[in-house]
Formats: sequence, structure tokens, C-alpha cells
Amino acid sequence: MPIWMMRQAGRYLPEYRKTRAQAGSFLDLCYNPELACEVTLQPIRRFGFDGSILFSDILVVPHALGQDVRFEEGIGPVLPPLSAGEIDALIVGFESDPERFDRHLDPVIETVERLRSALPDEVTLLGFCGAPWTVATYMVGGRGSPDQAAARKFALNEPDVFDRLLHCLAEASVRYLSRQISAGADAVQIFDSWAGSLSPAGFQRYSVGPIAEMVEGLRARHAGTPIIGFAKGAMHALGPFSAKTGVNAVGLDWTIDVAAARSQVPDTMVTQGNIDPQLMTAGPDALDAAVDAMMRGSEGLPHVANLGHGITPDGQIDQVHRFIERVRAG
Amino acid sequence: MPIWMMRQAGRYLPEYRKTRAQAGSFLDLCYNPELACEVTLQPIRRFGFDGSILFSDILVVPHALGQDVRFEEGIGPVLPPLSAGEIDALIVGFESDPERFDRHLDPVIETVERLRSALPDEVTLLGFCGAPWTVATYMVGGRGSPDQAAARKFALNEPDVFDRLLHCLAEASVRYLSRQISAGADAVQIFDSWAGSLSPAGFQRYSVGPIAEMVEGLRARHAGTPIIGFAKGAMHALGPFSAKTGVNAVGLDWTIDVAAARSQVPDTMVTQGNIDPQLMTAGPDALDAAVDAMMRGSEGLPHVANLGHGITPDGQIDQVHRFIERVRAG
Repeated sequence: MPIWMMRQAGRYLPEYRKTRAQAGSFLDLCYNPELACEVTLQPIRRFGFDGSILFSDILVVPHALGQDVRFEEGIGPVLPPLSAGEIDALIVGFESDPERFDRHLDPVIETVERLRSALPDEVTLLGFCGAPWTVATYMVGGRGSPDQAAARKFALNEPDVFDRLLHCLAEASVRYLSRQISAGADAVQIFDSWAGSLSPAGFQRYSVGPIAEMVEGLRARHAGTPIIGFAKGAMHALGPFSAKTGVNAVGLDWTIDVAAARSQVPDTMVTQGNIDPQLMTAGPDALDAAVDAMMRGSEGLPHVANLGHGITPDGQIDQVHRFIERVRAG
Repeated sequence: MPIWMMRQAGRYLPEYRKTRAQAGSFLDLCYNPELACEVTLQPIRRFGFDGSILFSDILVVPHALGQDVRFEEGIGPVLPPLSAGEIDALIVGFESDPERFDRHLDPVIETVERLRSALPDEVTLLGFCGAPWTVATYMVGGRGSPDQAAARKFALNEPDVFDRLLHCLAEASVRYLSRQISAGADAVQIFDSWAGSLSPAGFQRYSVGPIAEMVEGLRARHAGTPIIGFAKGAMHALGPFSAKTGVNAVGLDWTIDVAAARSQVPDTMVTQGNIDPQLMTAGPDALDAAVDAMMRGSEGLPHVANLGHGITPDGQIDQVHRFIERVRAG
């Protein structure tokens, strides 16, 4: 069973914190191919994961589309919320000159190229981006929130503009992921981190629809590249998500047992997850029990060992070693 | 089909904002029987709802247990996060003198008494409290957060203290709800607003278990009083929640269709919900469609029309009228 960890290049690692301190802002690090490559490789060197995920952020896409993006200590990302008119202007800007969007992301693509050269062949290099809905929640709402009320309100009040925004994000994201694949990514993951706040109809329209559009666009150019979809917080909709997006693999958060998840997806679908990241902050027994349940629940079926969300800054390195050893001991 | 709205006494109403401005702090309003009664009655006068829910807050319980609680503009509740030792001290304090806890909440009980006198007999008076898990997330984490990481970490690292805390909260909450019922509440609702961040095992242990303990305690004293349980964000676990807590009714948030929810609970169980509160900020067509789907999905089955969460400060009064009219038109 292959193993990697979401946010494996992160603040829980002292070597990450050291490189991060050299880089300037968080976005400076995302756009610095040398340092972004370095932090991506750090957890591979330390832990020998089977998968290496590009160090970047989902908000480089709205940034490349022309929206201001900052990361504030203790708050996270902060964007100036866009009006309907500003969204339309941004879409027109993208459509009239998509190469400008591409050029903005050149440093990220260079990071992928460097990674493919630096990584051993047997390590899977994963590219990624945010799903249109999740990216749009930040573009409209300006920051993270418990239930994305601002974006849900915008979608209800400006449905046409919002549909155009999601379509634009799907198109831009396909360009971006396609370049990551051409630069060496073996697989890509689409993060719909805020999909859990949508109604069933909204989930179909704003999460499933745009991701299906992306999968279709990617398949047309890179038929063999696996696509992982992760609708965090939407495990109540795992069946429709896996059936209707066209992805090859689905991420599972920790709110569902792997065995229960496997009963809702085809046997050929890969599942990925789903250890609670908080288990990396606690003692070994609870972690062992969760790892064993994950392995029992996916026995004989295609599964990638991972966390159910990114490892937190207070995650313990000893626990990460234990996670890997227990998975590898089978 | 009876109808009321979560947070129907709230900032979307000009008369609420006026009374709120007279009251001092938010907690001052909760502990002022005259003004709390007034704001509870305002939406009944304006809209003629079938249910009237006591104006209060779930955090009066930790406040009555001795924890400092403040409400900050633009942030929400802020509590000094408790250590394991502080939690044990607070539990000892409650067990050695539970009447002190009761006395702290006397003004809320007086509000219930005033309400029962002031309300027409045909209006159902609802009492409420937070579920032990949700209240504990604030006591340990100090404020709201997207995934309650602090409380989940605490529960893993201090499982015995955390179990004792939830048991203490269950016991204290039974005392509190029992007094609300004796003072005139016709039904009570237990809000587990943050149940959605728990693993299946955690959900059983921290959400279902303590609520079941509360239901048992309440039934022993008030056999005929209906109990509504609402595990917001945990619609993936609606079946186990409805089957194992012993509640008479379950709240539904807007992430599930009423028809799908009804297929997961017994026909005798009452469901309540589940209009997306954001629909109160948008145009009439989307609201009408959602109301119709709610009514179709519960046809012939016991259902209480409500929102899937509290109405937001930007909710439109016209939309509330439309919601009520459409439900009453059948």
C-alpha cells in the first residue's frame, strides 16, 4: 500500500521552518522553484514516502488570474472579495490572454520539472490544484469560514456570474494541471476542501459539475494520468462524487470508516486517506488502531495510505515514523 | 406542518437590534428575563410562528460552571481555553455544589416562565441547550473553528478527563433542561453544532453517547416531553444518530434532501429543517423550490418546517414571510 501525507512539506518539520524563514512570504516560497523544490523533497528524504506532492497553494490560481492574495500569520489567506463586475472583468482578462495566466505560474511549473529530475523514479510525483468551488469561496468570501456563507449567498444571488466563474476556474485549472503533467507530474489531485457546505443540488452544480469538466479536459490531453478528487467534509455525498466526476481515485476524510467508504465506491476505484491528522499529536495506541482499521477496511482493494486532511504544525515526527512503519509492516 | 426558524430572534430583525442595543452585552441580554422574553416574542408577534424558542446561548452552561465567557464583535464567543487540571476543578466545583450552577441560570428559567405566561397556548415553547461535545469544543478550544482541532486533540491526549467533562456537561445540561421544562418548555432541542468533525468512533463516543445519557435523564423526569437532536454537519451519520440517541426528532441541515433523510429514519421520527439560511438572502424562486422539495420529501410523515441552521443577520424579512406563506399554503 503506497503512502504519503497531505501537507507533508509543512511546519511540523524543522527543516521546512528553516527554509520557510529564508523565503520571504509564503507566496514567495510557492514561486521560488529552488526553495519550493527543496521543501517538497524534505519529507521524502526524511521519511521515504512513496508519493511526493508539489509544494504550492490552491490560491496561486486566483493570484495568476489577477486577484490580490496574501497570507496573514494566524489568519491564513486574505483576498479582497470580488464583486460580480470584478469577476466578469477577471474572466474577460483570462479569456483574452490566457498566456498571461500561464506565465504567472511558470515558476510552479519549473518546480515540477526540478522535482521530476531530483526524485527517484519510483517516487510518484503528484501535482494539484483547488477545485473551482473551493477556490471560488476564497475569491468571493475573501478568506476561510466555517460554512462559506458568502460564496453560497453570491451563488444564489448571481447564479450566472458564479457559473461563469466556475467554468473559468475549471478551464484555467485544466491548463495549469496539464502543464504540471507535461512537466513531470505522474498524477494530480483536485482539492474540494469546502464541498461539505453545499446542498445536494449545489454539490452537483458547483462541486461535481466543474470537476467533471476538468476531468474531461485533462483526459483529452493526458489519458493515462490518474486524477484524485477530494471533497473534504462531503462524505455524505461520496457515492455521487465518485460516480459522476470521472476521477480515478477519491480522498476520504476521517469522518467515515474506510470500510463504509469502500462499500459506496466501485472496487476498481482507488481510495485515499483517512487517518485523523490529530492522531499525529497524540499517543501511539490510537494511531495504531486507526491505521489497522484503515488497512482492514481496504483489504484487497486499491487504497493509498494518507491522512484525512493535512498534518498540523503540532504533528509529531515520531508519530509519522510510526504511521509509515505500521502501514509498511502490513 | 408546524413552522419556526432557528435564530428567529436575531439581528435580521430591526426590533431585535433595538432591544439588543438597550441590553448591554450579549450575555447581559441572555440573563435579563424582561428583555430576553421580549426578543423571544418579537418574531412570534411579527410572523406568527408555531414554535417559540427561548432566547439564550449554549455557552451559558460553561459560564454557569465557572468558565469566563465573552462575546466579541466580529469574532463570536471567546473563552479562556481550559487545561485538564482546570476542567477537573470545574467538575469538582459542580459536583460539590450543583445548586450554584442552578442559581447562575435562574434568570434564564425566569425567562421561560415569563414566556409561558406571555405566549398563546397554541404556540409551542422550545427550550434548548448545546450538546456536551459542542459545548466542550468551546471550553477546550476557546472559540469556534472550522474543524475543532483543539478539542479533538484534547480528547485524544486526555481521554479520561474529556470523558469526565462530557459526563459533567450531560448531567448539568439535564438539570438545566429539566428546569426549563418545569418552567413551561413544551419541547427541548439539543444542538450538536460541531458534530460533523468527529470520526465514526468519536461521533459515537462524544456526540451520541452523551446525548443518549441526557435523553435518558430527561425521560426519567419528563417522560412526555419531546426532545429534538440536531447534529449539524453530520448528515452522513443521521441513521446512527437517530437510532442511538433516543431523541424523538432530528434536525436536518441543508446538505441532505429531506426525502433522503426520511429514508434513513423511522417513519414515526419527526424531522425538522432544512432550508438553507442563505435562501433568505436571495430571490423568491430558489426559496420556493427548496420549500417545495422539503414538503414533497416529507409528505405524509411528521416534519417541522425550519431552516437548516440559524437565519443570518442579512436574512430578508420578505423572504421569511414568503417561507411561512408557502409552507402554510401546503
